[in-house]
Amino acid sequence: MASTNPARGMRDFLPADVRKRNYVINIIKEVYESYGFEPLETPAVENIETLLGKYGEEGNQLVFKILKRGEKLDLENATKESDLSDLALRYDLTVPLARVVANNKNELPKFFKRYQIQPVWRADRPARGRFREFYQCDVDAIGSSSMVVEAELISAVDEILSRLGFQDAAILVNHRDILKGLLDIALIAEEKQADALVALDKLDKIGPKGVAEELISRKVFDLDDANNFVDLVRRDVRIQVFPVSDVPQSEEGRRTQEHGNELFLIEKFRDLLTSSPAGLRGAEGIAELFDLLGLRLNNRLSFHPSLARGLSYYTGTIIEVGLDAGDFKGSIGGGGRYDGLIGMFGKEQIPACGFSLGLERILVVMEERGMFPAEIAESTPADVMVTIWNEESIADSLKLASDLRKQGLRVTVYPEADKLGKQFKYADSINVPFVCVLGDEERASGNVKLKNMTSGDEQKLPIEEIGDAIRNQVH
Amino acid sequence: MASTNPARGMRDFLPADVRKRNYVINIIKEVYESYGFEPLETPAVENIETLLGKYGEEGNQLVFKILKRGEKLDLENATKESDLSDLALRYDLTVPLARVVANNKNELPKFFKRYQIQPVWRADRPARGRFREFYQCDVDAIGSSSMVVEAELISAVDEILSRLGFQDAAILVNHRDILKGLLDIALIAEEKQADALVALDKLDKIGPKGVAEELISRKVFDLDDANNFVDLVRRDVRIQVFPVSDVPQSEEGRRTQEHGNELFLIEKFRDLLTSSPAGLRGAEGIAELFDLLGLRLNNRLSFHPSLARGLSYYTGTIIEVGLDAGDFKGSIGGGGRYDGLIGMFGKEQIPACGFSLGLERILVVMEERGMFPAEIAESTPADVMVTIWNEESIADSLKLASDLRKQGLRVTVYPEADKLGKQFKYADSINVPFVCVLGDEERASGNVKLKNMTSGDEQKLPIEEIGDAIRNQVH
Repeated sequence: MASTNPARGMRDFLPADVRKRNYVINIIKEVYESYGFEPLETPAVENIETLLGKYGEEGNQLVFKILKRGEKLDLENATKESDLSDLALRYDLTVPLARVVANNKNELPKFFKRYQIQPVWRADRPARGRFREFYQCDVDAIGSSSMVVEAELISAVDEILSRLGFQDAAILVNHRDILKGLLDIALIAEEKQADALVALDKLDKIGPKGVAEELISRKVFDLDDANNFVDLVRRDVRIQVFPVSDVPQSEEGRRTQEHGNELFLIEKFRDLLTSSPAGLRGAEGIAELFDLLGLRLNNRLSFHPSLARGLSYYTGTIIEVGLDAGDFKGSIGGGGRYDGLIGMFGKEQIPACGFSLGLERILVVMEERGMFPAEIAESTPADVMVTIWNEESIADSLKLASDLRKQGLRVTVYPEADKLGKQFKYADSINVPFVCVLGDEERASGNVKLKNMTSGDEQKLPIEEIGDAIRNQVH
Repeated sequence: MASTNPARGMRDFLPADVRKRNYVINIIKEVYESYGFEPLETPAVENIETLLGKYGEEGNQLVFKILKRGEKLDLENATKESDLSDLALRYDLTVPLARVVANNKNELPKFFKRYQIQPVWRADRPARGRFREFYQCDVDAIGSSSMVVEAELISAVDEILSRLGFQDAAILVNHRDILKGLLDIALIAEEKQADALVALDKLDKIGPKGVAEELISRKVFDLDDANNFVDLVRRDVRIQVFPVSDVPQSEEGRRTQEHGNELFLIEKFRDLLTSSPAGLRGAEGIAELFDLLGLRLNNRLSFHPSLARGLSYYTGTIIEVGLDAGDFKGSIGGGGRYDGLIGMFGKEQIPACGFSLGLERILVVMEERGMFPAEIAESTPADVMVTIWNEESIADSLKLASDLRKQGLRVTVYPEADKLGKQFKYADSINVPFVCVLGDEERASGNVKLKNMTSGDEQKLPIEEIGDAIRNQVH
């Protein structure tokens, strides 16, 4: 007998899981749609040449490849993996987007704003929180290099975080040109700069000392310069340099002051980078972003000059959403501008800026913190269960269920004329908050008995009043 | 340069497609949830031994198999397909359901009612309307052999059809035991009965004469008996035997009469099958089903003694939804009771009854018939687009967009300070019904110009009145 577990690194989502996933996904969808982003879906299976070579050597290994079929599979003459496979499973949502953009140039608008929430598959070693099938929630705006794009994207992410209840989430921004400018004025050669970013990207993991050591071992800086560079970009050191007043203030006053501090820090970097054209451009970009967003965000936007994000394809603004609470430290999403990637399947470069929310991480944190609203956390299959009194009254019970649905209720029916006690026990086991009994007495009087399973209270009511009675007792 | 088309038999869904798909899927979900069915999701990838052997020899060939990875792939010593593959793509939603039920015996309720709407993959030859990735919409109730299950399932399907607008869809029901009874009393040996059902299943395709010929060539019947048998189960002949009165009537009267005709026909079959215990059981089951549903359905339930449905795993009631209009003749869904299948991964048999709606076919018909409501068919990315007057006013336009979103509008922003004419042209191209202009004059007066893109009308309004103004002009 085969194992009944899902395949390694894959998960079944039972109803309670699906409800929580859909709750988060629906908020993400609703907010992105309110910003004019449109839904896109691509197939799980792509031609293998669409995917290979797009994610580096390690990525190539992690792509799930599909066996050729029928006569195409020539096992006798196959000498390597690529002889055996012609298709592969989607590895991310960006490469399919680039393919779709190239393939539908004439149908898509000049500025194409799409969101896409679909699973991707990676043959990674499964670990706590790392799965072989997981969802990505991507949003991308294609066709404009205006900072309006970043501002709208960040505003949408801010709203999603607020609606999900992440009060402590910070949206960190930086600009690749600021990092380039800092390395330029430190006279770090172009070919060493990528090494410097790789080291800097580890700041959260290995700390400032670790980064400095790595910068030295990678021969980017000597000892003093390494420490100076790391201190310069560190957020915590920066806070000591430009201290926030301790005077307690109104929410609005605090917000204005913190915004002012950010602007002041950006201005400092602008001055520092005057001699680097790239650096100046970067600082001015970030200044524009803060100007466009103004005070509208929920006080969580922050300029982080140490933010590097390892991915080499970013060309401008970089964005990361971090949680700073004790139970979970780390990123639940990231993105930025990547003007060189979407054109990979076409002739022309197309500017683009995007953001990806980490659904699986968001769900883990929300579960740990109990952030789901009661009606999702309780996960009931129905608002009310209708019992079956006896064989003769089944049709009446089904009619009652139908009437209650017309009152807007979700109604399940116990399927058999079992003893009433057994039916109530089942209702308890599936966690329905109300049960309706339509016995001989009730049928004679035209009423229905409604039992509140939490309080134990029972009422006799005309059918047409059940919906309101339930809604009144729930709220 | 690789092709930018999706892989063979696979499809990209651009925003207009996704909106239509989600419109249908959401109605299906809402109705199933209102009946107490719960959402289940299983991984796209299953262990290969979970799938192979479950769909017959042809099915085995059509399963997409995934190449082993790393050291597990021993190409040198591989002599057959099964040496190369350890995983496979989901082929349907029933086998995964059976696996989940076996794997979560203690967590799932005694009666488990689940729906599942996910893609499946089959390496079929692509053809018009046949894809290699397509969605299935399955609903199954597990754990009870009561006819209440069928009644609720059919009632839900009826409501879905009504809400989607399929006035002409018929829900046909039959019972495997009625077919068995008919063949029993015709003295057809047990081992020939499967052949008879295979032939009968083709009635729609090859007509009564074709079926009779096939029954003869399969040596089930001789000439006269074959014709008699086919006539007996044919719906159209039956109607001649029990004619519907032509007298025009009220909707309710007509419904009562048609229901009465169905009951009369069932009664006739009950009489006919008295000498066959199986047949009698089947006829009584169908009689009970009609009794439980009463007159509640939208007049589309019909007893079809010729309905066979090829799948050998049905054990009781069989159900099919057919469209009878000129443009599309055929099934858009089917199901029935299968008490022997869910237990395939466990020790005990578990009764079950399910139904699968054909999403791809439903979408094709709805498209052809123009059945989507205007707001879905028009597929606009936003209710309103906000223009950018000049570089200096960008922040004000973003603030306006944010304010309009708080009024419940979906708002997109033109991302650049282009000439206004260009911005309006873009608004036209993406089909937004309204455009807001915040020029110098408007900013000075505290108003906004709202243009109705359909009528061309322009109004100057305070920001807080825009939401209502748009809603009033749309409805």
